[in-house]
Amino acid sequence: METKSEIKKRIDTLRALMTREHMDGYLIVSDDFHGSEYVGDFFKERAYMSGFTGSAGVLVVLRDKAALWTDGRYFIQAEVQLQDTGITLMRQGLKDVPSLSDYLLAELREGDVLGMDGRTITVRRLKELEEKLEKKAITFKTDQDLVGQIWQDRPEMSHKPTWILKEALSGKSAAVKIGEIRTQMEQQEIKGYLMASLDDIGWLCNLRGADVECTPVALAYVLIDSEKVILYMQKESLNDQVANYLTRNGIECADYFAIYEDLSSYSHDNIYFDPNKVNVSLLEQLPQTVKKMEGQDLTALPKAKKNAVELAGEKTAHVRDGVALTRFLYWLKTHVKTETITEISGATTLEQFRKVQDGYLMPSFEPIFGYAGHGAIVHYSATKETDAALRQEGFLLMDTGAHYDVGTTDVTRTVALGPATERMKRHYTAVLIGHLALLNCKFPYGTTGTNLDVIAREPLWRLGLDFRHGTGHGVGHILSVHEGPQNISQKWNQIPLEEGMVISDEPGYYETGAYGIRIENLMVVAKDEESEYGQFFHFEPLTLCPYDRASIDETMLSDVDKKRLNAYHKRVYEMISPHLQEEERMWLENETKPVS
Amino acid sequence: METKSEIKKRIDTLRALMTREHMDGYLIVSDDFHGSEYVGDFFKERAYMSGFTGSAGVLVVLRDKAALWTDGRYFIQAEVQLQDTGITLMRQGLKDVPSLSDYLLAELREGDVLGMDGRTITVRRLKELEEKLEKKAITFKTDQDLVGQIWQDRPEMSHKPTWILKEALSGKSAAVKIGEIRTQMEQQEIKGYLMASLDDIGWLCNLRGADVECTPVALAYVLIDSEKVILYMQKESLNDQVANYLTRNGIECADYFAIYEDLSSYSHDNIYFDPNKVNVSLLEQLPQTVKKMEGQDLTALPKAKKNAVELAGEKTAHVRDGVALTRFLYWLKTHVKTETITEISGATTLEQFRKVQDGYLMPSFEPIFGYAGHGAIVHYSATKETDAALRQEGFLLMDTGAHYDVGTTDVTRTVALGPATERMKRHYTAVLIGHLALLNCKFPYGTTGTNLDVIAREPLWRLGLDFRHGTGHGVGHILSVHEGPQNISQKWNQIPLEEGMVISDEPGYYETGAYGIRIENLMVVAKDEESEYGQFFHFEPLTLCPYDRASIDETMLSDVDKKRLNAYHKRVYEMISPHLQEEERMWLENETKPVS
Repeated sequence: METKSEIKKRIDTLRALMTREHMDGYLIVSDDFHGSEYVGDFFKERAYMSGFTGSAGVLVVLRDKAALWTDGRYFIQAEVQLQDTGITLMRQGLKDVPSLSDYLLAELREGDVLGMDGRTITVRRLKELEEKLEKKAITFKTDQDLVGQIWQDRPEMSHKPTWILKEALSGKSAAVKIGEIRTQMEQQEIKGYLMASLDDIGWLCNLRGADVECTPVALAYVLIDSEKVILYMQKESLNDQVANYLTRNGIECADYFAIYEDLSSYSHDNIYFDPNKVNVSLLEQLPQTVKKMEGQDLTALPKAKKNAVELAGEKTAHVRDGVALTRFLYWLKTHVKTETITEISGATTLEQFRKVQDGYLMPSFEPIFGYAGHGAIVHYSATKETDAALRQEGFLLMDTGAHYDVGTTDVTRTVALGPATERMKRHYTAVLIGHLALLNCKFPYGTTGTNLDVIAREPLWRLGLDFRHGTGHGVGHILSVHEGPQNISQKWNQIPLEEGMVISDEPGYYETGAYGIRIENLMVVAKDEESEYGQFFHFEPLTLCPYDRASIDETMLSDVDKKRLNAYHKRVYEMISPHLQEEERMWLENETKPVS
Repeated sequence: METKSEIKKRIDTLRALMTREHMDGYLIVSDDFHGSEYVGDFFKERAYMSGFTGSAGVLVVLRDKAALWTDGRYFIQAEVQLQDTGITLMRQGLKDVPSLSDYLLAELREGDVLGMDGRTITVRRLKELEEKLEKKAITFKTDQDLVGQIWQDRPEMSHKPTWILKEALSGKSAAVKIGEIRTQMEQQEIKGYLMASLDDIGWLCNLRGADVECTPVALAYVLIDSEKVILYMQKESLNDQVANYLTRNGIECADYFAIYEDLSSYSHDNIYFDPNKVNVSLLEQLPQTVKKMEGQDLTALPKAKKNAVELAGEKTAHVRDGVALTRFLYWLKTHVKTETITEISGATTLEQFRKVQDGYLMPSFEPIFGYAGHGAIVHYSATKETDAALRQEGFLLMDTGAHYDVGTTDVTRTVALGPATERMKRHYTAVLIGHLALLNCKFPYGTTGTNLDVIAREPLWRLGLDFRHGTGHGVGHILSVHEGPQNISQKWNQIPLEEGMVISDEPGYYETGAYGIRIENLMVVAKDEESEYGQFFHFEPLTLCPYDRASIDETMLSDVDKKRLNAYHKRVYEMISPHLQEEERMWLENETKPVS
């Protein structure tokens, strides 16, 4: 870790460069050039400049001040890491803490210049800043990566080998997908379409890579018109097999950085792009006369609606993952009595159980193993400093997932490591009732996740409790574990749930300092009956892993709740037990036996 | 009713006036000058010009064509009334039927002039038309009421006597309410506030009138600044008592039509108004330099959140109304066996039961009595031609309500007039389960009606059924029976439910040609516990009337459903039985006895 004096020196150097470039402030974000959720080490400029290593945060350096915004899950870490650096910590969301744009509006002077690396700033983000700061006539200089000029030992930009997701697993050739996108373009009179979203590009080209942690994508751009599809990618990532597949599907390859020049000679009269994904430096290349058409990536909805082949892969992946997690849970329940297991060592062991499964690729996100009070920290990730040893009491919350060669998983189970108290059971059971109610609901076409959210929340509300996160997110097929456009949230999302969408069902309850409970299955939207009220849908569970029998207060369950619980456990036993050793099977049989 | 040839003559006369005024089209709506839901006879220009008397519809007259848009509930009536008039019926919402604005865009020529009486067109409506028709450079002429020039026997504009809702019933003086609105104005730097919404004006001034059917409001405008409040009203509506109250509360009176001149000499630099309520002719008066600030009426939220005094009145009103409706239901169930009762005569009898209650003023909306297949027509209103005789079978749906001197009711009960079939019971019980679940839910601050809607719908979805209307609407206090800004609907409404809001809970199910089921209570949002997840709320039922015991399939009820049903029925019996005669009481006792 950097010393505090190193950080101070870097900030001073940056200020000197700002003076040279006539900038009064400089914005340093945690984003790559693609609006990605996770980023490679090359892009971690904010961590380099501030010493704060959390996944979310924005640093602003002014002539005489510096401040960093991060959210609740990182307050403690940021306090420690920013101490004595001269950087003020802004605790996002707390009362009396100004937003980034309010701060800039207050601190910058009329007509000041704010610098930033435009490649790391999405079109949407700059637009919001511009609207806010126009009151003070602030101008923006986006053509300099000043941190890049300071950062001597910067890691190389990742260019790991890529591979093709076979059509036996993707269900559709890249050529067919491109044809479908071109149909959308024709309908909307779009002449050219610029893509920067890495998982959308991966889906379109059936291409997978390893340039982003936990997300098997390659750094790339795509430019499509009615004649050509150009994939901009670092040549080191390509091999013959990939190149041949792309060529066969009508995709030309160009160098990753050639996109800028190509855009400067762009010849159509309009261009479509997703302003949440495309960065401002790309757009600045375009001739002034090109009409800009903004909207969600055209691939977003077809990518979200998994086809039958993708779903078959997901189901296979979930059997493998369910076997791994069930075996681990048995191991955990038995070994916690006799061995020292910590949050980190437990997560490592779980990964070993996954690694022996067929086609295991990598974790789909950083594992969350939160024991006791750590479980109440919603995005807790154990570090050497915090790593807690598990005792034979309290709850352990485990939110983990993996990519397999056939599909992606994301599952949370919470288990009592000793006898569950009445209070623990009451909370666990309330979460479980909501989780099962959502898993078992049926709804007509047009229903959005916002319409359904309360189903999972209501049993907690009844107790005066709640959880402060969404209830469900979409999941990609060997792509990003968080994928839109659908979700299940109290905040309005207008996207109707449609056949083939994979989405999580993960209510929780968190008691600060005591424990966290979350129960998460992935499920897929499937057709139900069609009536005069339209096509109805229900959810089919993908995740196959028992709930924690010892934590259920059966007296809280209605007959309907019991039926739902028993049906799910029956399915788990049937699908998972054939893959277990006898003692594991016996344990699972007991865990999944019907409640009456 | 007008003959078809009279209608044709009127349209020809209008076309001659259009030619004189250089208009290529003329728009005739059903609205008053205030964006009201119901309007007085003076304003029924569209009915006069087309012969179509439904409550919703827009007529467009072009040089050589005329067309009228109305919605599903009026298709049959409009077909008959428009036949042989030369006016084409546009069945709104059906496939291949153009919207009004699409039609105008197609039919008008580049640069054409569209005329309308700007006093009947809200700012929002004109803006939407302008945005749509700018492609053809259509201009708008809004300063002529051409229909008014044709309409010789036009009814006088209503100016019924007004009265003051005493502070013992409103809970707050007009002066105090005005002070609260001025505080909002200061916070938002609003210099002047123009009000056109009749129920908002009624609420602010504690003023009630009788210029609109079923809605005790007076035709009026209000202009407020930091020094003055001017109420523009027809002088015939005023009496000394009202005038004195207004004066005491700092409200000046001016003539209804003087608002136009006052706006033309408006001297502040900004003005606030609700674009859904204020008409374009008002705005056209304002000096060009005045900055226009648009938003929901500042009175909307304080009007929606009833105070303790208003709520006490509502509770009293609901006891009276519950007694009337319960007595009527007993009368109906016994007399349907021996007497000829029709939809209209039944509704009339129910009104008689209400009229003998203390402080009865008027119906709060046109009663809906829908027998058998008529019940499936969501906004059915019996006419002489359709009036059905009740038989000892099938469902009768009754959606009615009243204003009393202390509060307003709106209640729907559906009863089986003979033995209910299994099918009828299944549908009735599914509606009832959802209705009770919503009535009994508990939710934290921030929850909107959209978040809760599914609770009432879900039991129907489970059967592959649904209903095609919202689940709940706000209700005014001796004002409009439909009042915002809160509602309970699948369509996004961002307004959180707050303490004191009155809202309906009215799921339904409609089987075309067979029957309609709707069960509606009004309920009030009340404080529940406060936890670390914020202030929780629950609903308290206002409506007091038994559900139809004979239509309930008890085998479909869970223990929780039974508890909810029994608790409500216990409350009904306790509150209503003291006001009944012995045979009525015995019947109610039986209807409300607990299910087990």
